[in-house]
Amino acid sequence: MSKLRRYLPIFEWLPGYGREELASDGLAGLIVAIMLVPQGMAYALLAGLPPEVGLYASIVPLVFYGVLGSSRALAVGPVAIVSLMVASTLGELHAGGSAGYLSGAILLAFLSGAILLGMGLARLGFLVNFLSHPVISGFSSAAALVIGFSQLKYLLGIDIPRTHLITETIGHAVSQIGQTNLVTFGIAATSLTILLVFKTRLAGWLAALGVARGHAQVLAKAGPLVAVFLTTMAVWLLGLDQSAGVMIVADIPSGLPPLAAPGFDMALIQELFPAAALIALVGFLESVSVAKSLASKRRQKVDANQELIALGAANIGASFTGGYPVAGGFGRSLVNFTAGAVTPLASIITAGLIAITVLFLTPLIYFLPQATLAAIIVIAVFDLIDVKALRDAWAYNRADAASLMVTFAAVLSVGVELGIVFGAALSIALYLWRTSRPHMAEVGRVGETEHFRNVLRHKVTTDPKVLMVRVDESLYFANTAYLEDALLARVSERPEIEHLVLIMSAVNFIDASALESLERMIERLRNAGVTLHLAEVKGPVMDRLDRVSFLQELGKGRVFLSTHEASDALSGGARIRAA
Amino acid sequence: MSKLRRYLPIFEWLPGYGREELASDGLAGLIVAIMLVPQGMAYALLAGLPPEVGLYASIVPLVFYGVLGSSRALAVGPVAIVSLMVASTLGELHAGGSAGYLSGAILLAFLSGAILLGMGLARLGFLVNFLSHPVISGFSSAAALVIGFSQLKYLLGIDIPRTHLITETIGHAVSQIGQTNLVTFGIAATSLTILLVFKTRLAGWLAALGVARGHAQVLAKAGPLVAVFLTTMAVWLLGLDQSAGVMIVADIPSGLPPLAAPGFDMALIQELFPAAALIALVGFLESVSVAKSLASKRRQKVDANQELIALGAANIGASFTGGYPVAGGFGRSLVNFTAGAVTPLASIITAGLIAITVLFLTPLIYFLPQATLAAIIVIAVFDLIDVKALRDAWAYNRADAASLMVTFAAVLSVGVELGIVFGAALSIALYLWRTSRPHMAEVGRVGETEHFRNVLRHKVTTDPKVLMVRVDESLYFANTAYLEDALLARVSERPEIEHLVLIMSAVNFIDASALESLERMIERLRNAGVTLHLAEVKGPVMDRLDRVSFLQELGKGRVFLSTHEASDALSGGARIRAA
Repeated sequence: MSKLRRYLPIFEWLPGYGREELASDGLAGLIVAIMLVPQGMAYALLAGLPPEVGLYASIVPLVFYGVLGSSRALAVGPVAIVSLMVASTLGELHAGGSAGYLSGAILLAFLSGAILLGMGLARLGFLVNFLSHPVISGFSSAAALVIGFSQLKYLLGIDIPRTHLITETIGHAVSQIGQTNLVTFGIAATSLTILLVFKTRLAGWLAALGVARGHAQVLAKAGPLVAVFLTTMAVWLLGLDQSAGVMIVADIPSGLPPLAAPGFDMALIQELFPAAALIALVGFLESVSVAKSLASKRRQKVDANQELIALGAANIGASFTGGYPVAGGFGRSLVNFTAGAVTPLASIITAGLIAITVLFLTPLIYFLPQATLAAIIVIAVFDLIDVKALRDAWAYNRADAASLMVTFAAVLSVGVELGIVFGAALSIALYLWRTSRPHMAEVGRVGETEHFRNVLRHKVTTDPKVLMVRVDESLYFANTAYLEDALLARVSERPEIEHLVLIMSAVNFIDASALESLERMIERLRNAGVTLHLAEVKGPVMDRLDRVSFLQELGKGRVFLSTHEASDALSGGARIRAA
Repeated sequence: MSKLRRYLPIFEWLPGYGREELASDGLAGLIVAIMLVPQGMAYALLAGLPPEVGLYASIVPLVFYGVLGSSRALAVGPVAIVSLMVASTLGELHAGGSAGYLSGAILLAFLSGAILLGMGLARLGFLVNFLSHPVISGFSSAAALVIGFSQLKYLLGIDIPRTHLITETIGHAVSQIGQTNLVTFGIAATSLTILLVFKTRLAGWLAALGVARGHAQVLAKAGPLVAVFLTTMAVWLLGLDQSAGVMIVADIPSGLPPLAAPGFDMALIQELFPAAALIALVGFLESVSVAKSLASKRRQKVDANQELIALGAANIGASFTGGYPVAGGFGRSLVNFTAGAVTPLASIITAGLIAITVLFLTPLIYFLPQATLAAIIVIAVFDLIDVKALRDAWAYNRADAASLMVTFAAVLSVGVELGIVFGAALSIALYLWRTSRPHMAEVGRVGETEHFRNVLRHKVTTDPKVLMVRVDESLYFANTAYLEDALLARVSERPEIEHLVLIMSAVNFIDASALESLERMIERLRNAGVTLHLAEVKGPVMDRLDRVSFLQELGKGRVFLSTHEASDALSGGARIRAA
């Protein structure tokens, strides 16, 4: 039973489930469903897929996640960035709307699901930690721009070829601005206005009118519903699709999603695999950060590996029911949480309501203008553009700011997939670069205390015969040559030095390359008449040195417990004040 | 002038050059030339090239290196591992011996020369530090095995197709063992015996006879010359090439190397570029480690970036004079050094002697058996197999041993180029993995001192309301999630905790991701009624924290200079002894 619980979190909450929870989850499920219908269709269009694919991806995946997920509030379904990545992957292979395009999207869902599931079973959830915040921030901001501009064609009713280069998109838009369909643009402008007002003002107005804060916040999320209702009615009543050429959602096949296995074409699988891995990673990253931030508000726990399994199952579920890759969406999960979802049953209720929609309600959205869906996307992704993150990073640490900017630029110039890979590689390279040139500080005694500090920052006393250097980094292959050169240079500059004490308080490990380098250094220093000593070696580091003959190689050199002890033993009374 | 000196080290030693130096360099140059003639031809054959290409690569490159190199003893020319990499790169593109194969080798020399030169001008010499010792050791051992077995066909006089898979080579050899040319095998066995005796015994015997140690060491290097002389005479006098089918070097075009620009075919350049970059890196690595180890014996300095420039020029020189990629060879440089080379003029003298050889002496080596050259290669690469490195790494650190073994296995199973890339990536991944799960120690006070140590390793006193944790790693994106989870788990397990003190003595920097994580942690701890404090924050880390609003976010939390101070302030008198 405990094993079952571990893999099926549903057994944790289902036994104690009662009426109160059901009311709460029911309301949240309804609100998310109302939000998800237009959003799902909009993101499917963004991915270059028919709108119903977005709805299909909002049924079975939600049920699977509800049973397996460890987060109580994550709302799974189509999300903007993953949709963009699907479009950018498949856009290179197939014309939008072709049968190959759709089956490619289904295969992507299966592959990323299988990758997520495999990572979860292999407990590889930690891999996501190797994407740094600046890289994620640069990636999201750039992706949001790409997504936003990709909607220009729907907002203006003009024809812009799909491209990942934002400059090309803008160029096309400018050159065809004369062909703008003014009615379409009017619908878009109205939708944008409604969405913005709901998003930024309505809660305040309602609060001023005395509506309870919680209710006001939920009502403020109804912007998409209102925009969809008003613009659909306008198109229907005025016949704008016929008279003004406004593009509408039109016929959506009614009935439940088709149940079919994805087509397993080995060549295509090989071709799509890298993109599927990136989609899996990015989708997981978005989901797990949302889930963690919501869980911490209610002191619940999210298990990254269980999330991998649940999202994997959700994606595989999508692939068998005509859907495309899904993830936990930020905005939607926040609505779910705010609206009162207490268990994943809320998601299952959402799924049920979406199923009812595709079964019976598709005629109601026949006249829904695509411009309205585009407006919903634009407003949703606008929040992803994070200028503050760049400003903060710039103020704090230029290397982080560089990662952010390079990722941003790479996504815009070479595309979403390569862009994030490039950013991640750069952030790792910058870390390696930093650790390959460790900070070293010569230290001296502070007054008559037992404290030793950097001679450049503090007023300390030193002994010209004893050089005491604190190395502020673990010793490993990438920094041994630097360390060796720097220390030997210091020694050769000051011939009066007889002892070199390496203070190891910040050295957390010494790898085999660094060990060799230290042994070589002992030898070279000995030739120069200098004895190498160590001080403040940590327990785990000392344990390893004890395993090999290093302590014998030290010869006359000693290992001191503290810098103070080293100084007393090597300098005796002789001390002079540092300049 | 000082700028000229910086880029042309020849101006450092030429002005003070005298007779004594000339005598010393002359002798060393002669000895290296005698060694280089058979070795150069042997390595060219290993690379799948005509023997004269190895001689051509031993003239102009040596002169260029002599003028530009910062090492006084490095002997440049064809080397085993680079030759193997040339063979493995070109073997996939062309049949051995074809015109395309030769022009490919020349282009590889040009490309790796250009890459080295570019890296030198961009001062990228540090890049080589990212190859760890275990990776280099695993790579060299595996490459030596591949090289050794590739010579079986020459040693046995049978036909084995070129392959990078050692198992296939052995399989072919076993299945054709019946076709062994016994005379060839006899020549090989004789050569191997001569080489082994000279290498392992002769110096001892001569010393016992009273020969001076230095002379004995130089004479012991004459093994290849003796083997070449005896086996060539035997083939010539007995007509073994005709009567017994012994493969010989045969006609070598006499005259200086052809002066011609390499063919610049853009498609081929793109194809060869990655391999050229690896050849450049490996060649540079071998050269610079030899140069550094020799320089340190005479207290001279080697400038890695200058070496890049000199080796780049040497390779470009090779490509314009019919040669193939060169590097500083280990054995040859040691001979040069031992024989008394004091300046790079020794190399220039060697080059002159090799030029005389190709002009006038090629008829003398007409009957030189290929089996003898193969024996020279086998004995030369045998030293590269380093079992002790594995044993040492295994004893010291399993992660290093794993890098070594994986690199070794990868070179043998997927080839030299991919193998070293894989090994390097693995060693970096292992480092990142290690730093992503930092060691954390809860500390307590040792007796009544100001020292605080790990509660698990020492007898210390702690206060149940104050949790003091030392984090033994810099905080960066890959370990923030781990740290956050681990610290919050400790706090939630012990509800009596009111203060969490992070001891930052081993934290050398905090990147932007970790800063965000700390800020999130302050908030989460505050919700749990726990205040976060810092202690022993290093100067550079504190400087950065001061730049942003972090210290305000700490709220009631404080930054203590020492753990002792934190303990005094937070615990007052209350202390209990740890279990």
